[in-house]
Amino acid sequence: MTVSSLDPGIAARLKRDPDGLVAAIAQQYDTGEVLMLAWMDDEALRRTLDTGRVTYWSRSRREYWTKGDTSGHVQYLRSVALDCDGDALLLRVDQVGAACHTGTRTCFDGRELTPPAAGSDGSARPATAEPASASPEAATRDTPTHGTVYDQAAAERTDPAEGSIR
Amino acid sequence: MTVSSLDPGIAARLKRDPDGLVAAIAQQYDTGEVLMLAWMDDEALRRTLDTGRVTYWSRSRREYWTKGDTSGHVQYLRSVALDCDGDALLLRVDQVGAACHTGTRTCFDGRELTPPAAGSDGSARPATAEPASASPEAATRDTPTHGTVYDQAAAERTDPAEGSIR
Repeated sequence: MTVSSLDPGIAARLKRDPDGLVAAIAQQYDTGEVLMLAWMDDEALRRTLDTGRVTYWSRSRREYWTKGDTSGHVQYLRSVALDCDGDALLLRVDQVGAACHTGTRTCFDGRELTPPAAGSDGSARPATAEPASASPEAATRDTPTHGTVYDQAAAERTDPAEGSIR
Repeated sequence: MTVSSLDPGIAARLKRDPDGLVAAIAQQYDTGEVLMLAWMDDEALRRTLDTGRVTYWSRSRREYWTKGDTSGHVQYLRSVALDCDGDALLLRVDQVGAACHTGTRTCFDGRELTPPAAGSDGSARPATAEPASASPEAATRDTPTHGTVYDQAAAERTDPAEGSIR
């Protein structure tokens, strides 16, 4: 039997941490739910691509972990994208059942640190020249003036996707 | 002036890496787009919660980085959730313009490693009464037979525009 390895073209694009890992975000492909964050090395990614079932590297157990093998909560791969600096993967998956080992659909469900911001109408984005970040105590030592600069820019913004990039 | 610090109840729930960081996934709150992955320490999270503008810790520059200060591409916080094991945050944000410094809306746009799986009808998930996780061979590390299952799905894939692996 031949042993396949990760496509060299893909491998060359990965920017691994000192443990040889990249972060992998799993997102339900149709609903957009962010299900979980886990880790992959080259071999985990190779297995995922070859088999269509998402396989991670478990940092705590130090072993490969094909999602759903013990729980039945399989992740079927739909697509994978690598981020701009090569150290994070976005896996679009079809998640069977709960992604979280605690039984919740995602690993983030019911674990909010804050209540959702007011309104679902985008009102959290400042419409005036007084965003929360412009308060003196919010203007920390690193961003003393940019809050104000931003207020002006934000009010004028139209198609920021094509706007200036640093 | 008083200097605030991260809420002790929140701080106690964080499971930081050796550099004192947790991963932070930013997701557009209404569309579900996964925008980027970055990092936060306690202070970055504190600033984010206090100001409503997302602030990360830049590992490369070793400094706090309030998203949008130089680009104008601000992230307004809508809510934050911590995952089940405390080492990843999901930030729901309202992203102004491009999240990626390259100018793309997300850091993953146009960076697919694989074509999207066939169809939008869930056909990538086996439709038989044979859940992958229940079969004995699925319990092995290498999942040798599931490659076949996936290959069949792959053979049905369309949309070659996304097909080239770079």
